[in-house]
Amino acid sequence: MSDAFVGANLKSTNDGLKWAKAGPDVIPAWVADMDLPTAPAVIEALHRRAAGDLGYPSWLEQPTGGPLAEAFAGRMAARYGWSPDPALVRPFSDINQALQVLLHVWTEPGDTVAVHTPAYHPFLGTLESMRRPLRPIQARPDGDSWRFEVPDLAGCKVLLLVNPHNPTGRVFTREELAELAELAERHDLMVIADEIHADLVYGPERHIPFATILPARTVTLTSATKAFNLGGIRCSVAHVSAPGVLKALDAQPPFLFGSPSVLGVEATVAAWRHGDAWLDETRALLDRNRRTIAARLPEEVTYRIPQATYLAWLDYGRTGMAEVLEEKAKVLLSDGAAFGPGGETYVRLNFATTEPVLDELLRRIAKTEL
Amino acid sequence: MSDAFVGANLKSTNDGLKWAKAGPDVIPAWVADMDLPTAPAVIEALHRRAAGDLGYPSWLEQPTGGPLAEAFAGRMAARYGWSPDPALVRPFSDINQALQVLLHVWTEPGDTVAVHTPAYHPFLGTLESMRRPLRPIQARPDGDSWRFEVPDLAGCKVLLLVNPHNPTGRVFTREELAELAELAERHDLMVIADEIHADLVYGPERHIPFATILPARTVTLTSATKAFNLGGIRCSVAHVSAPGVLKALDAQPPFLFGSPSVLGVEATVAAWRHGDAWLDETRALLDRNRRTIAARLPEEVTYRIPQATYLAWLDYGRTGMAEVLEEKAKVLLSDGAAFGPGGETYVRLNFATTEPVLDELLRRIAKTEL
Ligand SMILES: Cc1ncc(COP(=O)(O)O)c(C=O)c1O
Ligand SMILES: Cc1ncc(COP(=O)(O)O)c(C=O)c1O
Repeated sequence: MSDAFVGANLKSTNDGLKWAKAGPDVIPAWVADMDLPTAPAVIEALHRRAAGDLGYPSWLEQPTGGPLAEAFAGRMAARYGWSPDPALVRPFSDINQALQVLLHVWTEPGDTVAVHTPAYHPFLGTLESMRRPLRPIQARPDGDSWRFEVPDLAGCKVLLLVNPHNPTGRVFTREELAELAELAERHDLMVIADEIHADLVYGPERHIPFATILPARTVTLTSATKAFNLGGIRCSVAHVSAPGVLKALDAQPPFLFGSPSVLGVEATVAAWRHGDAWLDETRALLDRNRRTIAARLPEEVTYRIPQATYLAWLDYGRTGMAEVLEEKAKVLLSDGAAFGPGGETYVRLNFATTEPVLDELLRRIAKTEL
Repeated sequence: MSDAFVGANLKSTNDGLKWAKAGPDVIPAWVADMDLPTAPAVIEALHRRAAGDLGYPSWLEQPTGGPLAEAFAGRMAARYGWSPDPALVRPFSDINQALQVLLHVWTEPGDTVAVHTPAYHPFLGTLESMRRPLRPIQARPDGDSWRFEVPDLAGCKVLLLVNPHNPTGRVFTREELAELAELAERHDLMVIADEIHADLVYGPERHIPFATILPARTVTLTSATKAFNLGGIRCSVAHVSAPGVLKALDAQPPFLFGSPSVLGVEATVAAWRHGDAWLDETRALLDRNRRTIAARLPEEVTYRIPQATYLAWLDYGRTGMAEVLEEKAKVLLSDGAAFGPGGETYVRLNFATTEPVLDELLRRIAKTEL
């Protein structure tokens, strides 16, 4: 790997296996991590805690994860004008766990779940393994952005709303959310709002928490792991403002789904309370990167600049392109086919990397003959 | 709090709330943590990881927790002559979670669980909240140690074996384990062997993993959290050598019970691979402490020196003594009544503290008029 790949190298330093599939001459842009160092505030907080008390925290028996709930509430108020109730927070290891737990306590096999497609692929895997049929709500190209179909939600039990949306990077507008809320009311749905990418919205777009619109039916899921690149710390938040769902959760054995670690909570609280300088800088880099991609892609690739996330959703107009690009360009991307209906001719590119790596990556893509 | 209480102070430094009930002039000896600093190898490993990659580890999609399984297998082989199969490891947040998950996938409400009593009280709480009736196997005083009744396990579904035993500190002998294995076979039981205190056995006693005797019916639970004082990191191991149980676990949705954090795994692996110098020193301190208690308790208190753990199980011959000692001696102990049948006249004292703190604690207990 050339010296220019300081970003990509960073990852391999700490976890050699992680990028093993890449091999020394391949640029990986498929994992859902940033190829950037951690926020200093997080490192510092972890250093302090590691040298201190790693025993049972005083808040272990609180169902809310103690300082996690307060930090979450504080951040939502400061950034999104939403004042969630810390008492309604239930911590989980991660968003994928929280989703499976919610489906487990609230639905049965056979219950239909509506999801905007193409979709973050592990969620499709969850619906399949838990035998909850998918009702796809299709994203359609709309000028230089995306528009989602007005869905038919009759007969559904749950709306799983991923906002900001992965993989398109679309941020739902207030009108769109209000329309979904109206449908959720009409068809008696629980809404699981995965808002993990909220801190990665680029101006002038703005994130609107779904719970500010329809709290009584909503469970909001989020964590610091995406915006602050902490996928390994396993600490996430469910804010359960739908009273029936909270009751169903709290009726479970108290330790069945595990409990948050002091280190995960420490890192999350530090990111949320003291990480914004790092986040602003990082988002500025990502903002430049998302535009660089637009300027450098070959003519025949359709790219709608995402309004959020560090994911570029690229339409090659033909299937199997991830494999072609791996072979010919030595660039690893996610195959759009995994993202369900509407993803077949796409690849997803993770652009959360340094400029030299992105430059080399785009150079390789551009010179690939199709 | 006097300057002598450096140990107890240590805890309050990092998590003031934790000892809040204690108040400034009370010595807390009831929490199941050590009042000692963390092993340097663990601190170092966490510092390194915190400054490195906190993203998704390469092993996240392995069901075994990656390096956790290897470190566990290596340690069991080195210390206990047992060679568990790393492929049978399933990580959990903690032992209490693992127990609830096992009962959830393997038993129904109404199924009886045999447990040696008095018992680690959260397990009794689990049986109650999950409506699994308790079949107590009573511990009886036996000279200067304990003997467990030969149990009637007819009609039971599970034997929950805590070895070394909390609160008595008794280490099961090979003969006792063989007898339990024979009964488990006869009555078709799953055996959940909680061996979390194994690294805290004092010579000449020796820990024998139950899975070396009856692997086909056993799930072994352990973690580094007890011996290395890491209760907050939420990382534990289930080694599932009972094939039916493994199948039942693996039939669950893959993320339902959460997944281990890189920090929890890092700390555990460091403790198990590089923590033994610290552990030896710590065990030597605990060994002195368990004998000091014997020398310093009032005549009327019966104390059988534990063969393992940092817990002293003290018989005052009358109920309500935890309250009396809190009030009169300003020492916080666990009330034996919470430990189920046979615990009523006892208190449990955590002696994992420095000598000056233990000294003051025993002085206060000794001068308390009954
Ligand atoms: C939409 C969405 N939800 C959730 C996650 C993260 O899931 P987890 O918290 O289970 O790691 C991601 C990560 O890429 C994501 O894109
Ligand atoms: C017998 C026993 N099992 C388990 C635990 C720890 O449980 P967890 O891993 O859920 O914190 C303890 C802690 O005191 C214990 O004594």
